[in-house]
Amino acid sequence: MTIKAYGAQAGDQPLEAMDITRRSPGEHDVQIDIAYCGVCHSDLHQVRSEWAGTLYPCVPGHEIVGRVSAVGAHVSTLRVGDLVGVGCIVDSCQHCAECDEGLENYCDHMVGTYNGPTEDAPGHTLGGYSQQIVVHERYVLHIRHPESQLAAVAPLLCAGITTYSPLRHWKVGPGHKVGVVGIGGLGHMGIKLAHAMGAHVVAFTTSESKRTAAKALGADEVVVSGNAEDMHAHADSFDFILNTVAAPHDLDAYFVLLKRDGTMALVGAPATPHPSPQVFNLIMKRRSLAGSLIGGIPETQEMLDFCAEHGIVADIEMIPADQINQAYERMLKGDVKYRFVIDNATLKS
Amino acid sequence: MTIKAYGAQAGDQPLEAMDITRRSPGEHDVQIDIAYCGVCHSDLHQVRSEWAGTLYPCVPGHEIVGRVSAVGAHVSTLRVGDLVGVGCIVDSCQHCAECDEGLENYCDHMVGTYNGPTEDAPGHTLGGYSQQIVVHERYVLHIRHPESQLAAVAPLLCAGITTYSPLRHWKVGPGHKVGVVGIGGLGHMGIKLAHAMGAHVVAFTTSESKRTAAKALGADEVVVSGNAEDMHAHADSFDFILNTVAAPHDLDAYFVLLKRDGTMALVGAPATPHPSPQVFNLIMKRRSLAGSLIGGIPETQEMLDFCAEHGIVADIEMIPADQINQAYERMLKGDVKYRFVIDNATLKS
Ligand SMILES: [Zn+2]
Ligand SMILES: [Zn+2]
Ligand SMILES: [Zn+2]
Ligand SMILES: [Zn+2]
Repeated sequence: MTIKAYGAQAGDQPLEAMDITRRSPGEHDVQIDIAYCGVCHSDLHQVRSEWAGTLYPCVPGHEIVGRVSAVGAHVSTLRVGDLVGVGCIVDSCQHCAECDEGLENYCDHMVGTYNGPTEDAPGHTLGGYSQQIVVHERYVLHIRHPESQLAAVAPLLCAGITTYSPLRHWKVGPGHKVGVVGIGGLGHMGIKLAHAMGAHVVAFTTSESKRTAAKALGADEVVVSGNAEDMHAHADSFDFILNTVAAPHDLDAYFVLLKRDGTMALVGAPATPHPSPQVFNLIMKRRSLAGSLIGGIPETQEMLDFCAEHGIVADIEMIPADQINQAYERMLKGDVKYRFVIDNATLKS
Repeated sequence: MTIKAYGAQAGDQPLEAMDITRRSPGEHDVQIDIAYCGVCHSDLHQVRSEWAGTLYPCVPGHEIVGRVSAVGAHVSTLRVGDLVGVGCIVDSCQHCAECDEGLENYCDHMVGTYNGPTEDAPGHTLGGYSQQIVVHERYVLHIRHPESQLAAVAPLLCAGITTYSPLRHWKVGPGHKVGVVGIGGLGHMGIKLAHAMGAHVVAFTTSESKRTAAKALGADEVVVSGNAEDMHAHADSFDFILNTVAAPHDLDAYFVLLKRDGTMALVGAPATPHPSPQVFNLIMKRRSLAGSLIGGIPETQEMLDFCAEHGIVADIEMIPADQINQAYERMLKGDVKYRFVIDNATLKS
């Protein structure tokens, strides 16, 4: 089946309208009419070939929501008409230790929603900047939010789970003091989620201008990271810090804010390394630096259900597909509160 | 009371014989006639003023073993004649959360065995390169090894607990694959302890010449870290890596050997930073980099009892006190298997 999509033919080309094909649903497949797709920084890095190995044509998009339009014969838990989501993962080996634990995100054969290996044309996966997608039922999530919130649910599929998973893994909850570094697509979800989990949330930003907005998102306190005195007032006090900033920056400024046995988890990898951290700051309080990658499929469902229950969605700005190149430029400047979402209905024209 | 000691009058001076004084035992104090004192790299860094804030005269030594020669009126668990040890800590605030948990090593007011603040003359603590020491009973450990092993017990008080504590904290045991990086004073204890805990132990060394010795210490396998092929054969396979190397080196070479959720703990802080690690290697498998500092007093007692039960002591080379300057030079070249221990009886002459 041929459908409309938006993608790039090369790393130095803007995104443009294109036709792509999707496979017919197999026995375990779910065919989804995509309603909305969030715009993630990863989309931009991949489509512009800033990460190695981009295959063209490249159709990005891994924050996908829509309605089931067909199901394979063996699909039992999803029906035509259901509201569903697809995130960063559309396949994995399904039999390794990680897959067995529902940690498909750490499977060595995890297949990304775009630029991953597939037998489908053109030989690599094509993402959610498109009218439709066909995905194995294992990787399709139920959405229990009201349909009116559907567009704002889309970013939960990447930004939401990427922040929810480390908050859960490091057991954030009531009585914990949690920092969230960076107030962008990921950080704004981190603040909302940590707040809903009952933690005392401190948002760190480089910009005084984000103070009011961060509080509105659920931060109990906001600290401008350039203010050494304000930073020092929080020394040795955090149970956990979620660091969403991918740009190289001074990690030591945050290590010293962790309590004994505290962890700072990074969810973004910088293109060039961070300044090398001082080991001394880790040793003195048995602190840890960790990383975390998206989340598994069962945890993604848990996150969606948690968000539905707590009325959590992303703060979004909706755009038609033909505005994607301008949206990328604005995203690079941090000029979005806090996630662009494509209205995939605009692909029809 | 005036006693003999060995120390330095300045950072650029060799160590020499000197007289120092000790306080009379207070109600909770234990006076110890020191039999042996291990020689730790920290001693050298501190006495040579390679670390900030060295106070002179500086008498190093925090791997102290000996016999109780007097106790204060309120000391109930120790008697004159008992075999005891003193490690890196001789005081702390005794009422913070860390002290209450027996983690005096993470108390903000932890007092080191040398170069720490004290009301005793000369205003800073003086360590175990001396005939005698007076210490609050809280920081005095029972030694249950046979007396014939006493000299070889001394290094357990720093090198032993520094490696035991992270192995326990990260729950090393049977079924775990554990790496120990570096086969020196700390590393040789790490190998013995991890082996005794039931783990499969892989020792990493830069030197092929250490292979046989590492196996004799208890390593199940030995990998020369410069051999990329041998390193790669262990990719994604370690539960835990104890890294005892303080010299700056490539941490990424070890991160990639950790399984999902694996941790590498550093117990040495380099004078200049390690090359900045690749965040990507942490994110892809939710790996952690952590630090660990010595261990608390209850855990030090646990370690000593564990070692007594398993017949574990350090491998040592005994020296008279007046050979300490030469021993430092050999230690810098790695020319010791694996710890120098001063025979404090030689201080009398
Ligand atoms: Zn994403
Ligand atoms: Zn798998
Ligand atoms: Zn030491
Ligand atoms: Zn304390």
